[in-house]
Amino acid sequence: MTSKSYVVQMNANGVIDSTVVSVNKGKYPAKVKSRRQRWDVRPSEMANKTCNPIRDIVDGMKLTPNPEKAMIALSIGDPTVFGNLPTDACVLKALKDAVESARYNGYAPSIGYQKSREAVANFYNSSLAPLEAKDVVLTSGCSQAIELCISVLSNPGDNILIPCPGFSLYKTIALSIGVQVKLYNLLPERSWEVDLEHLESLVDEQTTCLVLTNPSNPCGSVFSKEHLEGILKVASKHCLPILADEIYGDMVFPGCTYTSLATLSSDVPILSCGGLAKRWLVPGWRMGWILIHDRRDVFGSEIRKGLVKLTQLILGACTLVQGALESILQNTPQHFYDSTTSFLKANAEICFKELSTVPGLTPIMPSGAMYFMVGIDIDHFPGMKNDVEFTERLVTEQSVFCLPTSVNIAFLFPQLIH
Amino acid sequence: MTSKSYVVQMNANGVIDSTVVSVNKGKYPAKVKSRRQRWDVRPSEMANKTCNPIRDIVDGMKLTPNPEKAMIALSIGDPTVFGNLPTDACVLKALKDAVESARYNGYAPSIGYQKSREAVANFYNSSLAPLEAKDVVLTSGCSQAIELCISVLSNPGDNILIPCPGFSLYKTIALSIGVQVKLYNLLPERSWEVDLEHLESLVDEQTTCLVLTNPSNPCGSVFSKEHLEGILKVASKHCLPILADEIYGDMVFPGCTYTSLATLSSDVPILSCGGLAKRWLVPGWRMGWILIHDRRDVFGSEIRKGLVKLTQLILGACTLVQGALESILQNTPQHFYDSTTSFLKANAEICFKELSTVPGLTPIMPSGAMYFMVGIDIDHFPGMKNDVEFTERLVTEQSVFCLPTSVNIAFLFPQLIH
Repeated sequence: MTSKSYVVQMNANGVIDSTVVSVNKGKYPAKVKSRRQRWDVRPSEMANKTCNPIRDIVDGMKLTPNPEKAMIALSIGDPTVFGNLPTDACVLKALKDAVESARYNGYAPSIGYQKSREAVANFYNSSLAPLEAKDVVLTSGCSQAIELCISVLSNPGDNILIPCPGFSLYKTIALSIGVQVKLYNLLPERSWEVDLEHLESLVDEQTTCLVLTNPSNPCGSVFSKEHLEGILKVASKHCLPILADEIYGDMVFPGCTYTSLATLSSDVPILSCGGLAKRWLVPGWRMGWILIHDRRDVFGSEIRKGLVKLTQLILGACTLVQGALESILQNTPQHFYDSTTSFLKANAEICFKELSTVPGLTPIMPSGAMYFMVGIDIDHFPGMKNDVEFTERLVTEQSVFCLPTSVNIAFLFPQLIH
Repeated sequence: MTSKSYVVQMNANGVIDSTVVSVNKGKYPAKVKSRRQRWDVRPSEMANKTCNPIRDIVDGMKLTPNPEKAMIALSIGDPTVFGNLPTDACVLKALKDAVESARYNGYAPSIGYQKSREAVANFYNSSLAPLEAKDVVLTSGCSQAIELCISVLSNPGDNILIPCPGFSLYKTIALSIGVQVKLYNLLPERSWEVDLEHLESLVDEQTTCLVLTNPSNPCGSVFSKEHLEGILKVASKHCLPILADEIYGDMVFPGCTYTSLATLSSDVPILSCGGLAKRWLVPGWRMGWILIHDRRDVFGSEIRKGLVKLTQLILGACTLVQGALESILQNTPQHFYDSTTSFLKANAEICFKELSTVPGLTPIMPSGAMYFMVGIDIDHFPGMKNDVEFTERLVTEQSVFCLPTSVNIAFLFPQLIH
């Protein structure tokens, strides 16, 4: 690798004497065949495979709202849509302080500022599931956290186990990278607990991870300690890492208890995904994280390194939000969290009470998160074929938009009552 | 798809009478074989393939700075590191206003708010390359813009053409999704113009796009209109779409002219990637965009749809920055842009002057961006093998960290002179 020297001739635009043009003439073999005779640009298989299954259902539906009634869209998990669930003033102040400081305009490390990762580690650290900054990866929203976890664990042809009913993004991400999904059943008659037998029956040689959503989107259920232990037992038996989507962690109704999965695990490595989106009511800020719980060192350094490498593709969260993170986590007052969950519970109770009076509907009272599931006994609705048609009619007649989930419809309830 | 009805028994945590546990016993076939008898979790091929080629070089280098001299790190394209290039006050004000409005806390559409996309379209719209909001996709930094463009055009096994020397991320992204890269030469003796013959010789049946960086990272060169037309001619002849990385667009020295590629193209479809990072000096904010220029409708609706689908994986930019975007683009005063480029030029001139006096070094005066390339005639440095060793010695002796790029070293110059 020795150097050549050359004379540099420059004008303002970096164009030089055109006599030098001929220097490389004939240096490269003539093309045998040009690539294309005509334009033919097609999207990649990855783009084609990337689809939102909910979109597919919704796009096929007849959705013309009743023009005499304002549309009430209850289909997206955004707590801010109707303006009745604002974030706390101290969250906004933390962000303004970060902007004013002008200290967070440059690049952060791809996994996030050390100080911000420490803040998240301190916030979620517990004696049962210790965390340090090195166990935290900051991401552009919980969606990227989930994407990185699935991507680091799975190759094309592998499969992951995801809940049914469940959040559509797992499937979207998996299919985009050629990973298959296997749906394990949640049991409505058991408040949406996992059908453990069904779950176990799905595990095969190509299964790379079990995705668990607790509290549940879209069921609103919160698993008991005992049930979580049952799930961990299956994962342990089959040596299956868990992606715990805990974005709704601690967002449970007064009187309910949320247990983070990692505090119960002695051997199963867990990637817990979370973020500011739901509990702090700022989903648009795209501040997510992965908490790596691996006390038996099953992941070793390789999975951690893999996560770091994947973050280098697009880097992570906006530095301003990262800069505000410590203050947000330390200073958000307890009464903010409490008033959010009390508000959610009160709204859910009204929905439950009202829906209980409707023949043919079986509302299932949630325990947390922001979702409500309603069973439909289709025999009570003559002329309707299924939940999709029920949903269509709800839009056509009442301009209320829920999501069909096979035998139930799901909706976001916090918006309903101001 | 008829419904079943069920009785819902709930306690606060959603745990019900344990007598129901047996309902599903024996329902699923017994597992023939459990997946694994022991823990064996490995990172995916994608994680393994995702590597930063610069990291690989740097990690292999002996980098122990001189303890008597403070480290001067000139290896990362971050204009904010040394604090001498602050963003404009009105950029910070726009962000604070967006926070205070509390209107940008919820989810935006995955491709960005319509209003913010309009603002970008208006800013870059020209009669020669018209743009509307529908032609703009907002992304989490220019890195995600580049990732989406490569991903939507290329399948595993395809290849893209990238400049050498060039920005390392193109290769990192391509290899992570199984796309090969072919390096076309930039010619230092022609102020880093593209070797068009070499470029053309690389095109084959599997080539999906030509990546062009103008102004150049890491060369600091700015292509003339005539040279850009020459590149377009090659792309047109081989029906090759162009990914134009124009993140340094308009960031050229007084007296130089930057021409956006799309204004010169009559038929070649161009995905122009940009963002706030460099020109507005806020790389950490992760605000990027793709401008779709396709006046002959080569992409049709399919590539656009593909881009939209890919944005749904993790959504895009932080909504606060999106909310501030219109104000940033409309209100940043011209003197801010001018003083940045004047400052850059003055610094580059000092570097050029000083480095010109060093025997064995051939500085190449840049015309824009923030990078400076220096040719090394290694024969003038006895005992040194190559540019990597030269870079190592620069760290060891002077605590100055540049990047080796085969026969040159590159560094970021704005930091040098406060």
